[in-house]
Amino acid sequence: MTPAPSDTLALAIDLLSRRSLTPADAGCQTLLGERLERLGFRLETLHQGEVTNLWATRGEGDTLVLAGHTDVVPTGPEQQWEFPPFEPTLNDAGELCGRGAADMKGSLAAMVTAVERFVTAHPTHHGRLALLITSDEEGPAVDGTRAVVEQLRQRGERAQWCIVGEPSSNDLPGDVVKNGRRGSLGARLTVHGVQGHVAYPHTTRNPIHQAAPALAALAAEQWDAGNDHFPATSFQISNIHAGTGATNVVPGELEVVFNFRFSTEVTAETLQQRTREILDARGLEYSLDWTLFGEPFLTREGRLLDAVITSLEAVTGRRPQLSTAGGTSDGRFIAAGLGAQVIELGPCNATIHKVNERVRAGDLDTLSQAYEAIMQRLLG
Amino acid sequence: MTPAPSDTLALAIDLLSRRSLTPADAGCQTLLGERLERLGFRLETLHQGEVTNLWATRGEGDTLVLAGHTDVVPTGPEQQWEFPPFEPTLNDAGELCGRGAADMKGSLAAMVTAVERFVTAHPTHHGRLALLITSDEEGPAVDGTRAVVEQLRQRGERAQWCIVGEPSSNDLPGDVVKNGRRGSLGARLTVHGVQGHVAYPHTTRNPIHQAAPALAALAAEQWDAGNDHFPATSFQISNIHAGTGATNVVPGELEVVFNFRFSTEVTAETLQQRTREILDARGLEYSLDWTLFGEPFLTREGRLLDAVITSLEAVTGRRPQLSTAGGTSDGRFIAAGLGAQVIELGPCNATIHKVNERVRAGDLDTLSQAYEAIMQRLLG
Ligand SMILES: [Zn+2]
Ligand SMILES: [Zn+2]
Repeated sequence: MTPAPSDTLALAIDLLSRRSLTPADAGCQTLLGERLERLGFRLETLHQGEVTNLWATRGEGDTLVLAGHTDVVPTGPEQQWEFPPFEPTLNDAGELCGRGAADMKGSLAAMVTAVERFVTAHPTHHGRLALLITSDEEGPAVDGTRAVVEQLRQRGERAQWCIVGEPSSNDLPGDVVKNGRRGSLGARLTVHGVQGHVAYPHTTRNPIHQAAPALAALAAEQWDAGNDHFPATSFQISNIHAGTGATNVVPGELEVVFNFRFSTEVTAETLQQRTREILDARGLEYSLDWTLFGEPFLTREGRLLDAVITSLEAVTGRRPQLSTAGGTSDGRFIAAGLGAQVIELGPCNATIHKVNERVRAGDLDTLSQAYEAIMQRLLG
Repeated sequence: MTPAPSDTLALAIDLLSRRSLTPADAGCQTLLGERLERLGFRLETLHQGEVTNLWATRGEGDTLVLAGHTDVVPTGPEQQWEFPPFEPTLNDAGELCGRGAADMKGSLAAMVTAVERFVTAHPTHHGRLALLITSDEEGPAVDGTRAVVEQLRQRGERAQWCIVGEPSSNDLPGDVVKNGRRGSLGARLTVHGVQGHVAYPHTTRNPIHQAAPALAALAAEQWDAGNDHFPATSFQISNIHAGTGATNVVPGELEVVFNFRFSTEVTAETLQQRTREILDARGLEYSLDWTLFGEPFLTREGRLLDAVITSLEAVTGRRPQLSTAGGTSDGRFIAAGLGAQVIELGPCNATIHKVNERVRAGDLDTLSQAYEAIMQRLLG
């Protein structure tokens, strides 16, 4: 006798069977929207480019946003999957297998069933409960949360708290929550020299020779020491190119691409200024193009973090570890655009973006209980 | 009334009208060979790959080689030429215009007419007079002089003196002669790191960061101070590449191509060893592929240099300046392979490898007289 799947598992299976390769949504948002509408949510579908975004709200006042994405990354080689990636399957270990199981259709299912239980128990809850669901998180992430937040911001909307369902956990559900992310600042540096023949070095100015000590200094620089929440700011050169292949020509230009992952101890502006100082000190002739991919965000002690920690202690019996490690997420847009405290809480991330992505079915139920407990504490 | 062209000018015009784009000879060597054969030269045509080489000798004993090439570099944009590049034309300034006028069909014409006058006046000259003419100097220079010298060396041939007709002069014919050339040593350096995501720098080892201080040290190194004949050894990086274009990936490898132009104060071996020491001192994991393009050569005071200087003083009234500047030439092969003292003496080089290449017709006559005077002093 197989036990009947939980509501959360059933909904996750329904979502996983939809081939929503980024930026496709493949009907996931319609499915979720219908369930939310039945609970009295007001729905707004925001199309931006190829991307579908759903903004659903219930109530008025201080706002808790549950945020997530329906798009998934490509499967990789399908023949390496134990089960077909878009035919969700429960394996013998009780794991739900399929692309998006952990990142993050499982979280979306857990959020929506949590909302259903919470609203049924608290039909006149305090404040406003909102869901922000996009299908452009795994792609360029321009027409998704960023665009929605910009529209909301322009009409004066704010939010106090936000839970992003990204897979934050390591071994057990809720063992780690992310209470911030580093900023990401990129640059393209062009060092200008004078081209010529290697046999006549006095007629040339070799931009590689000129840049080498400056790049060594940038790589050796201690930008900050980090803080309690962030590791030290890191600098990495990802690309360097000069020369056309000819071995007897001193090239006229050197191109360097680098990236900062930065803590809240520095700002994009100070990093830019210190970079210029290091280059100027070596007399380089150069141009620099900067791209700010994301400001850092940090959620310190406060009502949201309290609610998350006490809810996880109550549901899992464990106190979560706080982390700001890893890449960027949509949390940066919600924190910056809506002024919200943002926490990321989702399933274990061991298999995300890999073949045989999977999540323990029981973990989704645990997560759903945790989400419900957080709503209870903030809006109950 | 236009004066009749000199023998040298007439022969140069004949050579310039042949479209001998490297490695083509276009009949130039046949033309020159017929004239030498008439003087009693023994001819050997040495084919190597696509390349035609002529080795012509007269007499026995201490050998003076006159060396040159019949191939020319491409014309560049033909519409920028005042006269068609393969229709040799004497302009109003008395300059012979056409591809190869200065580099170096003009020298070849001057050499052959000098030989004709010298042999006619000295039918039983001392020693051996030889011409080494190739059509692979402007290209890879593998199947040309290098191959001929290797064949001569293997059968035990030696030469005492060599004049290469490369355009050595700056403003006036014979104002500069080259009495040596720097060596050229190339390398391809691969620095091995560990690829990864820029957001997780502790899982990566960035080969660009590791290499930057080592490249700065190589660029700053004083390899030697040069000597009376050579400028200091120079080091130039011509190419540097790492990264696939993705801005969030730390690349796994860095490729660097560099070149030494080196004096007789160092050897290729010591440069290789010191390079490895500089890389090893910074703990780099790397591989290095070396290519020795040419050993340096230097012709100090001696019978050849004496003959060249006194001949030029007699013919031009000026003492030539000695120089070892510039790229490599076929002189390196003749010096190393045949054990010869080597001097380069040819017309002004201002227009070589450019559009509207040209040489003063009178300069070719002066050169021819200088070549004849040198033969006189060494074999007369
Ligand atoms: Zn995700
Ligand atoms: Zn030449």
